[in-house]
Parts: sequence; structure tokens; C-alpha cells
Amino acid sequence: MKFRTFASPLDKKSMENHSIIRGRLAKLRFAMQAKGISACIIPSSDAHQSEYTAPHWKTRTYFSGFTGSAGTLVVTWQEAFLWTDSRYFLQAEEELKDTSILLQKAGLPEIPSIENWICTNLPGKSVGIDGSVFSIREVKSMQDIFRNKNISLVTDFDPLLQIWTDRPSIPSNQVFLHPEEFSGESAGVKIDKIRKSVAGEGCNSMLLCSLDEIAWTFNLRGSDVQCNPVAIAYALITPQESVIFIQQEKVSAEIREELFKNKIMIADYDRLPVYLSAQKGLTIRIDSGKTNQFIFDAIGRLSENKQLSYILKEGPSPVALLKTLKNETEIAGFRNAMKKDGLVMVRLLMWIEQSLASGRAFTEISVEDKLKELRSEQALYFGESFDAIVGYQEHGAIIHYHASEASNQQIRAEGMLLIDTGGQYFDGTTDITRTIATGEVTDRMKQDFTLVLKGHIGIATARFPKGTRGSQLDILARRFLWNEGLSYLHGTGHGIGHFLNVHEGPQNIRLEENPVCIEPGMVTSNEPGVYRAGMYGIRIENLVLAREEKETEFGSFYCFETLTLCPIDTKLILPEMLTQEEKEWLNSYHQTVYDRLSPHLSENEQTWLKNKTYEI
Amino acid sequence: MKFRTFASPLDKKSMENHSIIRGRLAKLRFAMQAKGISACIIPSSDAHQSEYTAPHWKTRTYFSGFTGSAGTLVVTWQEAFLWTDSRYFLQAEEELKDTSILLQKAGLPEIPSIENWICTNLPGKSVGIDGSVFSIREVKSMQDIFRNKNISLVTDFDPLLQIWTDRPSIPSNQVFLHPEEFSGESAGVKIDKIRKSVAGEGCNSMLLCSLDEIAWTFNLRGSDVQCNPVAIAYALITPQESVIFIQQEKVSAEIREELFKNKIMIADYDRLPVYLSAQKGLTIRIDSGKTNQFIFDAIGRLSENKQLSYILKEGPSPVALLKTLKNETEIAGFRNAMKKDGLVMVRLLMWIEQSLASGRAFTEISVEDKLKELRSEQALYFGESFDAIVGYQEHGAIIHYHASEASNQQIRAEGMLLIDTGGQYFDGTTDITRTIATGEVTDRMKQDFTLVLKGHIGIATARFPKGTRGSQLDILARRFLWNEGLSYLHGTGHGIGHFLNVHEGPQNIRLEENPVCIEPGMVTSNEPGVYRAGMYGIRIENLVLAREEKETEFGSFYCFETLTLCPIDTKLILPEMLTQEEKEWLNSYHQTVYDRLSPHLSENEQTWLKNKTYEI
Repeated sequence: MKFRTFASPLDKKSMENHSIIRGRLAKLRFAMQAKGISACIIPSSDAHQSEYTAPHWKTRTYFSGFTGSAGTLVVTWQEAFLWTDSRYFLQAEEELKDTSILLQKAGLPEIPSIENWICTNLPGKSVGIDGSVFSIREVKSMQDIFRNKNISLVTDFDPLLQIWTDRPSIPSNQVFLHPEEFSGESAGVKIDKIRKSVAGEGCNSMLLCSLDEIAWTFNLRGSDVQCNPVAIAYALITPQESVIFIQQEKVSAEIREELFKNKIMIADYDRLPVYLSAQKGLTIRIDSGKTNQFIFDAIGRLSENKQLSYILKEGPSPVALLKTLKNETEIAGFRNAMKKDGLVMVRLLMWIEQSLASGRAFTEISVEDKLKELRSEQALYFGESFDAIVGYQEHGAIIHYHASEASNQQIRAEGMLLIDTGGQYFDGTTDITRTIATGEVTDRMKQDFTLVLKGHIGIATARFPKGTRGSQLDILARRFLWNEGLSYLHGTGHGIGHFLNVHEGPQNIRLEENPVCIEPGMVTSNEPGVYRAGMYGIRIENLVLAREEKETEFGSFYCFETLTLCPIDTKLILPEMLTQEEKEWLNSYHQTVYDRLSPHLSENEQTWLKNKTYEI
Repeated sequence: MKFRTFASPLDKKSMENHSIIRGRLAKLRFAMQAKGISACIIPSSDAHQSEYTAPHWKTRTYFSGFTGSAGTLVVTWQEAFLWTDSRYFLQAEEELKDTSILLQKAGLPEIPSIENWICTNLPGKSVGIDGSVFSIREVKSMQDIFRNKNISLVTDFDPLLQIWTDRPSIPSNQVFLHPEEFSGESAGVKIDKIRKSVAGEGCNSMLLCSLDEIAWTFNLRGSDVQCNPVAIAYALITPQESVIFIQQEKVSAEIREELFKNKIMIADYDRLPVYLSAQKGLTIRIDSGKTNQFIFDAIGRLSENKQLSYILKEGPSPVALLKTLKNETEIAGFRNAMKKDGLVMVRLLMWIEQSLASGRAFTEISVEDKLKELRSEQALYFGESFDAIVGYQEHGAIIHYHASEASNQQIRAEGMLLIDTGGQYFDGTTDITRTIATGEVTDRMKQDFTLVLKGHIGIATARFPKGTRGSQLDILARRFLWNEGLSYLHGTGHGIGHFLNVHEGPQNIRLEENPVCIEPGMVTSNEPGVYRAGMYGIRIENLVLAREEKETEFGSFYCFETLTLCPIDTKLILPEMLTQEEKEWLNSYHQTVYDRLSPHLSENEQTWLKNKTYEI
């Protein structure tokens, strides 16, 4: 998500921008006071609980200037605070400077949750939110907490109409089909699986609100959200048909015809409540974590006004799990996409090395541009899966750094460069991080890098029984750092979609508990790191596929297969810190990288790769 | 908990006992049918949610013959099932043989929870429980689940009066004080801490129902429950005074006088509701996980019948955390108790070795008796902290095995012997497991032992930041076994009381999530194992104290200090499977064992210990 022209870090015009922010906050406070609202909570989400959102929903950025993907703004009559997580601490400090908004470092033990902060500071008052950007579950949880302090929650407080006058409209890009040749399964089969799954819970229908769940179910893709190939829509699966609620002009006649073969209809984006009012006998599964309060209220009002013609039953969407268990076609596609991305990375790393050797000036942004150029040469390339993080030296310590014209650093022949990037291909989505030495590096850099690598290998080589959760595996990535009093506060791994969102649930590998178990077919990132603020950052990221390993008298055991193909910089490794097994993993990984990539490389490139994948 | 005369494993009289069980079930079904109850749930708990209970509450054993400490019986008109966890699978299979009761192996993925089993099999029916042996939380959770299937829960179904005519009464053993010299803190100071803690939640009073929380708070001990030095009681702390509800005859005049110094009164066990009805202005914290439904209903009925004179506020008891964070006096006491227990173990292991060498016949039960004899020689000894598990060869695979006259094995000069035992001393509670070779052992035994040892060292040497939960550390104990397709299904570690229950919360180290973090001052067991059914079992258990290790720019880091002092059998170790660091830990541990114990040993014993603690 780039906003180079607005509130980018270290922007020369920042003072000017900050006075704009103060003006917007003043208008917001005026609207709050008019409605008797003492605090307004503005999250980063859209109406579909998306992590990345279309510009239409960038309300939190509009009011704060903070451009990170995660963060929640709380505005009271006197104060304003932004809660964000450790990935964004440094960026938020930069971007909030002089805005009057104070940073709350979420995740640190001494920082209260937003709800607790409000309970402590505003007992007995009213809190306003725009219900369309909060899930039912979030609203219920807030209400439960606020009730103890007599705080009332107003869920239809949306003052944007008067304030954000030039708000972008909801995007209306054309949708397109994701052919079965890549998805491996027709929409019809997927819909049947969903029907069968919700039938087990006594439901005959399913309401889908998550954009990636809709995209997966109907083998439909869009480009409404940068880097995420999804379209803004709701969908309802009933016993007779499926209906996608979407701006009509986005769907061509050909696609409608194709969808119709699986009894999939198209209706206007805002017609879900009206459609429902005409139905009878539906028992609809809704996921309260994925359905927004506004649509829930709209459906609820409808059922209050007339004879109840349908029943809502709360429960987790079965699509998240169906979607994350990749089928053989998707896995083959992932392998192919990894090969292409590996070629891109090899060429990029060679180009960087040559640039450094030749003394040709180049910057963080030129690396990013080169990446896109190299990826666009690959077959089935659709776009980037997220805005690349190219952070030289101290910028590498800003976990979700994105270079702006102002911050853009020239890369010199010393220190380390962190590159976190990914591509969207029709046959798979990629996400890789490499940290490389661009010249002289310190021993501490090498030590830190080797500790991170040991953790990376810990996950890559993990073997674990059926029923194991990501939170149990997480320490395998962290323990070497913890032994030295180091840590990183971001997750170790996230699920990844197949030509879909680069972050997807339901599984992950994190410090925090998540009851979802790691199952064969899941693709998850493996990305430990360590960050020395103001100095450098290190992260090593591959994607891993969970697979069955063996059956014993003690049950089924699973393992990971590393999918990503790209050398890890051995110049940054202290081999004496690695065990024999760790060296063997690295050597075998490098052998695989060479074997799979070299047939597609020029002789020159082969030689380079050979040198980078020598046994240590 | 021993029941040698009744339904012990492999008992020759088992067929006879099993017909008794069938008769009792028939009477229970008659009572169920008379009240229209389709299923009756009988847990192993007492009215205080204790893990180990007085004979008065051994209802589940009475109706099933199963003597394990954990297990729940479900009886329907046609069938009966016992749910128990992996520790008891083998024992339950033995004990349930021919009783008509079927085993449900809880924890296996294919086994439904009791609630789900009932939902599937008895929709629309009535389920009966004795509310006094279920917590408020358990009842609420069952009601929530049953509601979806129109199942009603009758919480006052207690047919025992008619059936269990010779039911033992509630024990009436004398209580005694645990002097501040050992507890390190007066009851007055502890009560003030509790008052302060609940005040933070808007309460001025605290209801205590857990026997160990009551014992800790008032520095009072008893002997109502075998191995647990607690007395059956409730207690209420109000702003003015504290009241212990307990059978009056248990408390001597001297103790009453001592308690009165801290404004602690004594009232009859059943007077809590009546006492409350005379109170005004109390806002009482109750822990719904620790308060039984019967007492809650009794208090609730009272508040319905008259002007509400007090308010109940649900929330976790602060005592659990206060109690588990051991003070310096308690820690010093633990160290002293470990030294004594180490001497006991050294003498026991020597005695076993000499018995084997001399060809003197000895059995599992003689080891147990010898243990008690040796412990009773130690200062401040009070009793065993649980019935020792002494399992030779295949008995070692029965995780909570207890030798009966019938099962009692002679120990021969081959294979392995598992000894899990602990003592109650006035200055601390101990819990240790050692598995030793009594003669020739196989390579597989050594491999398994070394894998378990590697896991044990993994926990012993863990370093982790503040905020880490036991479920995150757990894999450090399991990963070596998992790598080889092995596992164990019990927890890796439980908290342990100070001259109190050998199992105490709130922290633990388990597969299952538990939000409680490991904090400095907590004492937890470290006991990985592996069990080959019908062959042998291995477990290595020490107690570890969590301590602060260091502060870095990344925060506070903690580590464990191993408290238990006893050699680990090096004859069972394959040194080539250990890393250099693991060998160093073992050698350093053995050096500590020798250094701390040898001053208290005879020359002969010193020589023996020297031999057992040589560097490998």
C-alpha cells in the first residue's frame, strides 16, 4: 500500500501534512461533540474485515497520516492515540510526529488494550464507531467490556460524509475467472463442499463476507485491492443457488454466463438485505468474526419488521479451512510459481552484486523497480503480492518499511540489505525475504543472522504429530534468539493464499494462541527475524508446505517442505554456530535451489548460483 | 490414592467386584428412570474441585471400579462410558473389564467430548448431575452446549443417599498451623494481599472454595485428603473479618486463638449461606471455576428470597497466582526439602542395587515401603505427596500405575524400573521420577531414554522472555521424540504447592493452551516420558524454579533452575546422541547433586554417588 504523495515517512512536506491531520481531527471532534460521543474508534479495516483495503476505506490513514497496514486510531475530545503493533513502531513514530496523535505500542505488557484504555478513561461515556468496519464479534466483545463501566457503544457513527468530501468511491474494476487449470476445482464442487459442511451444523445456507473467501469459492478474481486479487462483494449460498452481491458493471456477460453454469447469480452490492427478505426457509451460517455489524443490523432489522423468513446461525466459516488446504493442482502451481520467483530473485541478487561491483548508484526504490521488471518477464505474472520492503541498514529494522522518495537510501558496499517481496502469478502467490551483505559486515551482524537462520531451520525441519498448533511450533524459531536475550515481536509464519491474499488464515505460527492445527496441504511462511533499531534488520523467509511424514504406533506425524527457491547469503553465516544437522539442511536446501533453478538460467547465471550454493 | 482391597488392577477377585459394579449401575438407572433422567454424569471431583478427594466423594470409583485420579463416568439407561486421559488408558482398560462400562480415550482426535457425545446421542433428553461436584463454570458450559440440542440439565440429581448406604462421612481430622518460619508470610499479610487484589476488581470480599487456597491463605493444614495436607472447608474474607467454614471439632481452642489474632473466625462447614444472609454491603469475588453449583444455588436462592444484601462478582481467584509465586522462605524450604529427598533417593537407589546384587527378592511394593521408611527418617517429614508409582518393565508403561498385591512384580536384574514419588515436608513438597536400569537393557530402551533426557534438558535449559506461556515451552521437551515418531500425551509440567498439593495451578507446561505465563518464583515439574505399552515406560522428572535471567534492550528474560537433587541413570544414556551442551548440562547437574548431597552422606554412600555422577 503506497502513499508516496501523502504522509510518507521523512517527507519534507510533513509539517504541512500534519497540519492537515490536525484540521481533520478538529472536524471529527466537532461531529463527535454534536452527537455526544466522547471517543471514536477508527480501525484499518473495510466492510469485509480485510487486512489490506481499497482507498475508499482508508479512513484511519485519512485521520492520522499513519500508512501502515495495521493500526487503530482512538480520538477523544482532547486527545488522540494510535495503537499499532511492533512491526510499525518505528514507522508510526515517524508518521505521527507533530500530528498530536500519540503512539500506543500494542503488545507491550504495559500498554492497555483499546477497550481497557477506554474503560479506565471514559467510564459512563458514549463511544462511536462505524459499524460497517467492525465485525459482529468485535462489537459484541466491546459491548461486553464496556457494559461493566456503563459505556455505551454507538455503532452507526459515521461522520465521513461531511468530512471526507473527496473520498474515493468503491473500485469498479472488472472481475475475471481463475480457470480450473490453476484452481484445481470448479466453483460447483467448492459450493457443494460448503453446503455439506454447513449442513453438519444444521444450516442450509452460507453468507460469505470475506473477499478472499468469495474469490476462492467462485474461482473469481478482481483488482479492487492493491496486491490482493479480490473484488468487493458479499455472497450467499442457498440450497437452490448462489448469489454474488457486487457492482453489476464489474461482471461481463461472458463471466455471468460461465457462473450461471454453476447456478451462480449476480446482484447489486447493496441488495443482500432485500434479497434475503424474499427468501423462505433459509438457515444461514454466518461467521461473526467476518460479518460486519452494519450488514448484520440491516439483516436483523429486516427480520424484526416482518415474519422471520430465515434464521441466522453463528459459527466459523468453513471456507477458511477448505481454502487453506491446498489441492494437488494448487500445490503444483505453487511449486511452479516458486521456480519463477527463484529466477527473479537470482537475477535481482546478481544485478545488485553487479551494481555494487561496478559502482553504479542504485537505491532501495531501484531494487523495488528492478524486482517488478524481472517478475513481469515471468509467465502468468499478475502483479506484486504486496509492496516490496527494501530496507538498507537501519531501514531494515523498520519491519514494514516502505521506501518513499524522501527516505530512499542509496545502497553502498557495506552492511546489510533486507528484501521482503512477493508476486501474484495465476498459478500461485509468493512471499520471500532475504537479507544480504552488500559489503563489509560486523561480527554481531553475522551472529544475529546465524541465530535467525538457526530458528528458520528449526521450523523448516520441524516434525510434529497431528493436532499440533502453530503456537506450539513458534518457539523453534525463537529459542536461539531468546537464549541470547534477543527477540522479535511479529509472527513467525502466516498462511498464504493461492493466487490470493498473501496473508490468509486460519492457521499461523505465532506467539499468540490460535486453536487451528497445522494440517497437510497448508502453505505457511517461515520468517523469523531480529531488528536492531537504528542499525539494521534481519529476516529470512521461505514458504513451507505441511505434509504427512509418517504413521507410527503413536499416530500421524507431519513435516514441512520448503517451497521457496533462493540462496541464503552464506557470507552472513558463522558456520561454527551451526550444528551438523543445520549445516546439512542448508547444504541440501542450496542443492535443491541449484537443481531446480539452474536448467532455466543462462550459463553466466548458473555460475553465479553455483557460487552461492556451495556447501559450507 | 490406594484401594488395594477393591478393584485393583489384575485383582483375582475382579469378576466378583465387577458384578458389584453392575448391581450399583442397575440401582442408579432405577433412580434415573424414576426422575426421567436419560444420562447421569459422575466426575471424580469433590465439592471443592479437588483433584484428589476424600473417600466421601469417591462416587465415580463407587459406580465404576475405576480408581484413577481423573475420569468421568456417564451412565445412560442402556450404556455406560468412562472418559479418562492417556495416563490412565491401560489402567482403565484393566479395571473396567467385565463391568459393561466402555472406555472413552479422552484427548484422541476421534473421541468426542462428553458434552458432544450427549448432544449426538441424547438430543431433547434430560441429563442429571450432582451440582455440588461441578463448578459453576462447568455447569454453565454444559448448559450452553446442551441448549442447542434441547437437552435440559438437572443440577440437583444426587441419588447416592438411597444407593451408597455405607458412604464414608466427611473426614474430621484435626487441623494444624503451618508456622511462618516455613510459610514465610503471616495469614494477616496474605489476607491483606487478597483484599487488595479483589479491590482492584471492585470487590471487598472473596469467597474461597479450593482447599489448597484456604490452606495457603490461613497457613492452616489438615489431613482430610490422602497425600494433600488440606482440610475440607469454605472460607470468606470480608472487609472486617475472615471466616473459615469447617467442622467445628477439627479446630482446637489454641488454633482458634491463634487465628483470631488475624481476625479469622470459625463457623460450621454448612453455615456459609446463613452467614451471608446476615451480611450487608459485601461485594464478593467468586471464581466460577472453583465454586460448586450447589453452594452457588444456595447463595443465589438466599438472595432471591430477600433484599439482596450482597453482590457476587465473577472472576479468577487471585489466590492461585499469589500462592504459586513462592517467597524466599518457601524457596529456601524447597531447596532443603530437595536435599532431604535427594538423600532418600540415593539411599533407595543404593538399596535397590544392593538387593539386585545380593539376589535378595524384592518387589514394586517393597520399593514403595522402603521409600516411605527412608523419607520418614528425614526432618520435618509429614507424609507422601502422592502414592508412589513404582512400575517395573511393562508396568512402567501404565502412566499412573499403582502396584496392588495382585499386580506386584518382583524386580529382576534386567530391564527398567520407573519410580515416581514425592514427599510432604513442613518446608516443602517434592515430586521426582527416575527410570533406572536394573540390569541388561536394549538399545531401543537407551535410545528412548536418551530422547526423553534430551527433552528434559530442553526444558531445564530453556530461556524465554517475560510473557511466555507453558504451552510455548512444551515442545522443547517433546521435539526429540516427535522427530522419531514418538510422543507422550500427558503434560510436561505441573505447578507444585509448598507443603501443599503436589499438583497446583495456575501455570503448567502442556500441549494444551493455558494463558498463564511462567513467572519468577513458580515451581513446576519437568517430566517428559515415553511409554511402550506392554514393554516399558520412561519418565525423568525434576522440579524447576523459574528465575530472572537478564534484562536486555528486548526486555526481561527468565530461565529455570533445577531444584531436584538425584542422579540420572547414565547406564541408560547413549552419549553420542547428546550434543556438547546437553552433556555439559548433565555433567554440571551431576556435580551439583554430588556437591549438595555428599556432605550428608556416609563415606560408603559418597563413593556410590561419586560413581553415579561421573562426567560423561
